[in-house]
Amino acid sequence: MEECAMLEISNYLSANAANMKKSVIRELLKLTNQPDIISFAGGLPAPETFPVEDLREATDRVFRKYGDKILQYGTTEGDNDLKAQLIAYEKENGIDIKADNLLITSASQQALDMLPKLFLDPGDYVIAGRPTYVGALQAIQSYQGRVLGIPFSTAGDGFDMAELERLYHRAKDEGKQIKYIYVIPDFQNPSGICWSLEKRRELLQFSYRENLFLVEDSPYREIRFLGNPVPSIYEIDQKGENRGNVINLKTFSKILAPGTRIGWIIARPDVIQKLVIAKQAMDLCTSVLTQKMIAEYMSMGRLRETIGRTCSIYREKRNFMIEQLELYMPKRFDLTWTKPEGGLFLWISLPHFIDTEKMFYRAIEKKVAYVVGSAFYFDNPETNAMRINFSYSSREQIEEGIRRLADVIKDEIDQHDAGPRGQTMPEGM
Amino acid sequence: MEECAMLEISNYLSANAANMKKSVIRELLKLTNQPDIISFAGGLPAPETFPVEDLREATDRVFRKYGDKILQYGTTEGDNDLKAQLIAYEKENGIDIKADNLLITSASQQALDMLPKLFLDPGDYVIAGRPTYVGALQAIQSYQGRVLGIPFSTAGDGFDMAELERLYHRAKDEGKQIKYIYVIPDFQNPSGICWSLEKRRELLQFSYRENLFLVEDSPYREIRFLGNPVPSIYEIDQKGENRGNVINLKTFSKILAPGTRIGWIIARPDVIQKLVIAKQAMDLCTSVLTQKMIAEYMSMGRLRETIGRTCSIYREKRNFMIEQLELYMPKRFDLTWTKPEGGLFLWISLPHFIDTEKMFYRAIEKKVAYVVGSAFYFDNPETNAMRINFSYSSREQIEEGIRRLADVIKDEIDQHDAGPRGQTMPEGM
Repeated sequence: MEECAMLEISNYLSANAANMKKSVIRELLKLTNQPDIISFAGGLPAPETFPVEDLREATDRVFRKYGDKILQYGTTEGDNDLKAQLIAYEKENGIDIKADNLLITSASQQALDMLPKLFLDPGDYVIAGRPTYVGALQAIQSYQGRVLGIPFSTAGDGFDMAELERLYHRAKDEGKQIKYIYVIPDFQNPSGICWSLEKRRELLQFSYRENLFLVEDSPYREIRFLGNPVPSIYEIDQKGENRGNVINLKTFSKILAPGTRIGWIIARPDVIQKLVIAKQAMDLCTSVLTQKMIAEYMSMGRLRETIGRTCSIYREKRNFMIEQLELYMPKRFDLTWTKPEGGLFLWISLPHFIDTEKMFYRAIEKKVAYVVGSAFYFDNPETNAMRINFSYSSREQIEEGIRRLADVIKDEIDQHDAGPRGQTMPEGM
Repeated sequence: MEECAMLEISNYLSANAANMKKSVIRELLKLTNQPDIISFAGGLPAPETFPVEDLREATDRVFRKYGDKILQYGTTEGDNDLKAQLIAYEKENGIDIKADNLLITSASQQALDMLPKLFLDPGDYVIAGRPTYVGALQAIQSYQGRVLGIPFSTAGDGFDMAELERLYHRAKDEGKQIKYIYVIPDFQNPSGICWSLEKRRELLQFSYRENLFLVEDSPYREIRFLGNPVPSIYEIDQKGENRGNVINLKTFSKILAPGTRIGWIIARPDVIQKLVIAKQAMDLCTSVLTQKMIAEYMSMGRLRETIGRTCSIYREKRNFMIEQLELYMPKRFDLTWTKPEGGLFLWISLPHFIDTEKMFYRAIEKKVAYVVGSAFYFDNPETNAMRINFSYSSREQIEEGIRRLADVIKDEIDQHDAGPRGQTMPEGM
């Protein structure tokens, strides 16, 4: 009979697979599928920002213009028309690149998967923010990589650089292999932090001094609705010492539409070549059809206009959400939220006694959802924070959702203040 | 000055990356880009088989029907409309599946990348044919996996089962960790071999006895232009002992159009769930736009017709190529080619003294290209074989190309027969 048993898959998993963390976001999102829940949990762009009619037109044109060519295999490096458009686009952004500095990816998540594959052996470390984007953590973990988490400065202008030095040297002294730095300098997911020019320069100098590649993930860079742009770290390197150790990840997911699944990596040609070999074995090539569609759309000259409109819509939603927070949230020194100048998210820090994972189920009962802050930490998570998204919900949903969320938080605070004595006693007693 | 040096990327690569083999095919293909070369090297489907107008129409319809929804993020598991179409399609194929048996992938290469990620630790083994698909080898190598290569029977009906037993038990005795079996039972790439029903059953029994997952890669299954279909191993298991250890990989690349980059994995729900977690970290989801496009196309009811037309075109091209081989090739017992009943390729075995890698450059001089046989071996490659593709070239190109190829081979044979005595002496003398 033993032979007849079905194979138990857990006995067959690689150490990589055993190390893959099922996304907390994803699991919790399943609870938010009821239609009457107002969810601030996802990271979805506002669908009203997608230029549906223009993209339909662009797609129709490339079918008529190229016929079977858009349905055939393409090169691993990416479509030349799209690359030409991207070179022009990045030139306007102040960056000077050639075709061999570019690799088209199946959006940024594929790039985030390639980097640990290229650089990490099991147990190797990546320097990243505390908190940081959960998709990057998942990719690193799926190759048994580890994260040296660096807290952000209280000014919210980048890493706490003294902590970076301290933690880095301690890790080196402990013999840890540190392979690259991963940062999202523009409107970081989840914190919304935008790095100052000075901090960008300092981090670049740190990467030079320590001979580290620096991965700059910029999905939200163009989604700035307040203040002035700060040069990307890629640009600072290029216009300065030009050592070429910055690898910049970009995507159409937030500036055009995520369903296109098209992103691009900007890096030195030798880095691009290694990534091309990795991509060959991962998916051969990205869809020519969707690449050509975007190239055609870009040639219409309306991408900047679309981004501008998206920024207006998000500015309005962000302002409105902050208004509602100020209106409904309990006033306490230990209940704060970020006021980002771009991106899609706010980060709310709550009183230390609130565990947002435990509170999540009560929030669902009250028909409102968020992402638990702990999801964004590789280790030793902060448990009293949450990420909320302002791009997807309507004005009405934002008002009602924030009111519900404030009620849930008020209940937590009230319960804590009135809580049974036995439970508030220090553990030592 | 030392600090100023650019980072040397080879010092930063993971063992995975250092183990990635640049595709021989790809490197050699670069030589074939001159327009006057007739290339049998690629594996491209015939562009005239793509239903361009229907796919244009389907795409236009889904833009109008779903609007922004096809431009938003989708679920990692895949689009429900496409899944429903695939369930119906596979039912017609004799396979009974539900939505939780399916994962939509960015074509089969992504599935080939997921499997070693899920199952292999560095040094672990996969059982596979000698030769086998180079993209599968690349994916396995990119996780430091190894391949236990099994020769095919002289009858060309599947593995040499005695050799499978002998090599398997020797490997086990040597302490090798064997994690799964990988086969392409229908018109194998590169050999064109189609496994007999008996051999499929034997291999399934072997996998049951040894408690191994069996990965059945079926990109060409529907591209049968002669003879009668043999049940897939997935079907044999499902209609027999139904132990669920078969993982079936399928794709639209050969039956519709590769530019769609859409494939699907059929497996037990618990296997699918693990693959979903892996895919999350790899690319979040496959393009909703292209998934919906295919679902809409399938709903038009013309996929079978398209496949039928493709099979007719390929049958004609395959027959014509074999005719030309019979006409032009030197007649020798040690110069043979396969006569596949489906797929896209012929496999030519040449006299032992011909090294197809060395001959490649002379073939390029004569303006004809093929894939060197050695590319399809994990280790100890056969050096006197080549793969040629019959799906892509026109009738005129096939005739002229085979004539050129025959000339190159004749020259090799003549040179060998007349060769300088000094060079033909055994090395020991």
